[in-house]
Amino acid sequence: MVTETTDLPVSYADVVSAAQVLRGIAVPTPLLENRALNERAGGRLFFKAEPLQVTGSFKFRGAYNHISRLDPQARRAGVIAYSSGNHAQGVAAAAHYCGVSALNVMPEDAPAVKKQGTAAWGARIVTYDRYGAEPREAIAERLCQEQDLSLVRPYDDRLIMAGQGTIGLEIMQQLGALELEPDRVLVPCGGGGLTAGVATAVKHHRPETAVYTVEPQGFDDTARSFAAGQRQNAAPDAESFCDALLAPEPGLLTYQVNSKLCSGGLAVSDGEVAAAMAAAFSHLKLVLEPGGAVALAAALAGRLDLSTGITVIVLSGGNVDPILYAEILRGT
Amino acid sequence: MVTETTDLPVSYADVVSAAQVLRGIAVPTPLLENRALNERAGGRLFFKAEPLQVTGSFKFRGAYNHISRLDPQARRAGVIAYSSGNHAQGVAAAAHYCGVSALNVMPEDAPAVKKQGTAAWGARIVTYDRYGAEPREAIAERLCQEQDLSLVRPYDDRLIMAGQGTIGLEIMQQLGALELEPDRVLVPCGGGGLTAGVATAVKHHRPETAVYTVEPQGFDDTARSFAAGQRQNAAPDAESFCDALLAPEPGLLTYQVNSKLCSGGLAVSDGEVAAAMAAAFSHLKLVLEPGGAVALAAALAGRLDLSTGITVIVLSGGNVDPILYAEILRGT
Repeated sequence: MVTETTDLPVSYADVVSAAQVLRGIAVPTPLLENRALNERAGGRLFFKAEPLQVTGSFKFRGAYNHISRLDPQARRAGVIAYSSGNHAQGVAAAAHYCGVSALNVMPEDAPAVKKQGTAAWGARIVTYDRYGAEPREAIAERLCQEQDLSLVRPYDDRLIMAGQGTIGLEIMQQLGALELEPDRVLVPCGGGGLTAGVATAVKHHRPETAVYTVEPQGFDDTARSFAAGQRQNAAPDAESFCDALLAPEPGLLTYQVNSKLCSGGLAVSDGEVAAAMAAAFSHLKLVLEPGGAVALAAALAGRLDLSTGITVIVLSGGNVDPILYAEILRGT
Repeated sequence: MVTETTDLPVSYADVVSAAQVLRGIAVPTPLLENRALNERAGGRLFFKAEPLQVTGSFKFRGAYNHISRLDPQARRAGVIAYSSGNHAQGVAAAAHYCGVSALNVMPEDAPAVKKQGTAAWGARIVTYDRYGAEPREAIAERLCQEQDLSLVRPYDDRLIMAGQGTIGLEIMQQLGALELEPDRVLVPCGGGGLTAGVATAVKHHRPETAVYTVEPQGFDDTARSFAAGQRQNAAPDAESFCDALLAPEPGLLTYQVNSKLCSGGLAVSDGEVAAAMAAAFSHLKLVLEPGGAVALAAALAGRLDLSTGITVIVLSGGNVDPILYAEILRGT
């Protein structure tokens, strides 16, 4: 039984095409196993290490898949993106490699490391007040019109979802080389683009694999949406230090994909995320940002029974302020 | 012109044989490139990420290559090793996979993370006073006799050097896949086993590639030996926080290899190492221990002109105390 995804806003063929575009450009990140973390989680885990990706997060994959396909006129005019920081860096790097100028709309309180990372690729930055009257989408749309730029959406876009989906392809290939298959895949979820891409790739190869979203508590709008059967908002007063995963609601397109392909949504506390970041330091020797650690946090906190079969944990990014990270290490 | 290494205590054939033994057991660690670090170093750098190896350092490669070849009688009796910590963990893990018991002689002041890592693999630990009357080699030899154990030396051993050399093979394969070749390779150096193995593999494929050792200042006995033309000791009053690289003199066998194959020896200060650890955090998202960061430190401190060609930096390990690491992050 193959899950039919051709009626969805991203297809397996889109993911395969993205993998061809990204060959030799994106890092085929390693899939790591660690005995101590297996013991802590009570099952066999594999970790997809996207902090090692260009720009330190998975976002480069989708951004390059989108920008590299723009026509010559659009390339000359340049691109614009809105992002809490990782998509901004992905767009900035992809634009750099494609010889395209990039403008990024970022929240004023985005981590300095993400603003610096974006600027280092030669992109311009416009900041906005995360709690202000004009939403970032509106600011970006306005600038888009004024300057005739192409908007590169962070998740609600076929090429973006397909690019992120190359992670799912690599997971299947890397496990396949070990003659293994995943029983479940846990994916950090903000707007849902990463989940949509990964689920599209994984479920094509193995429909019985369960894909779960993992979100910060309060920002578990995707989990609530799954439960309600329609798109729900995050809690209005929610707070989390997972700055990459603060999207207020699931994307329109991503929700179409994820509501069909996912088995459920999990949520973790900031404390559980901090513990996961410390565990990744000690055992995987990887730097994770809070949003990049939520799936590991769900595994270590026992949100699912992982005692049977193979579990894949997507570690989605590592762009974290060193002082915050030092505080987490000192707290353990 | 191929450098003839058949008269040396480790050969290219030994390294190829080690790679066959390690296939599917050791992690073929990624070779990473980073634009920001290229800019800081003023040339094109590739990083061999051994913190992602089993046990968090390269030492597992040599230990498994040695222990897996022991005859049944030796396996039943068990192995013994002396080590500041990374070799101990490598031996403990390799012994675990081979179903062999392991006893490790470690300094009392070894990092807690390394003692815990060794014990977690089921190995027994005997500690000794680093500044005491009986050298660790003598303690290990005595226990070896008393308990009929096989001694797994940390570097002065053909199978250990050959195992570490698989890093050199992977470097050539991974650069080759990008249609590149290394002009120089910088290798962290304690007793010299890693350097000997890497140089054996790299110089076989490309004799004109320059291989450099990198040591902590004061513990630059290999660099001094190269300069003097014979083995020299480290400075008697030397201190460094690079706990993995405090060997007092080059190995007998490793020096035979390295004095023939290396182009020179570099040394770095603890401050330069700390800066390299912070740079690896920010740009590579990798946790490096001090000894694992010396080659990166040499590159960032400008010890060599790296402006032309391809430079490979071996990042040899990531077993570092979280509190020390937090202090380094807060200091930047």
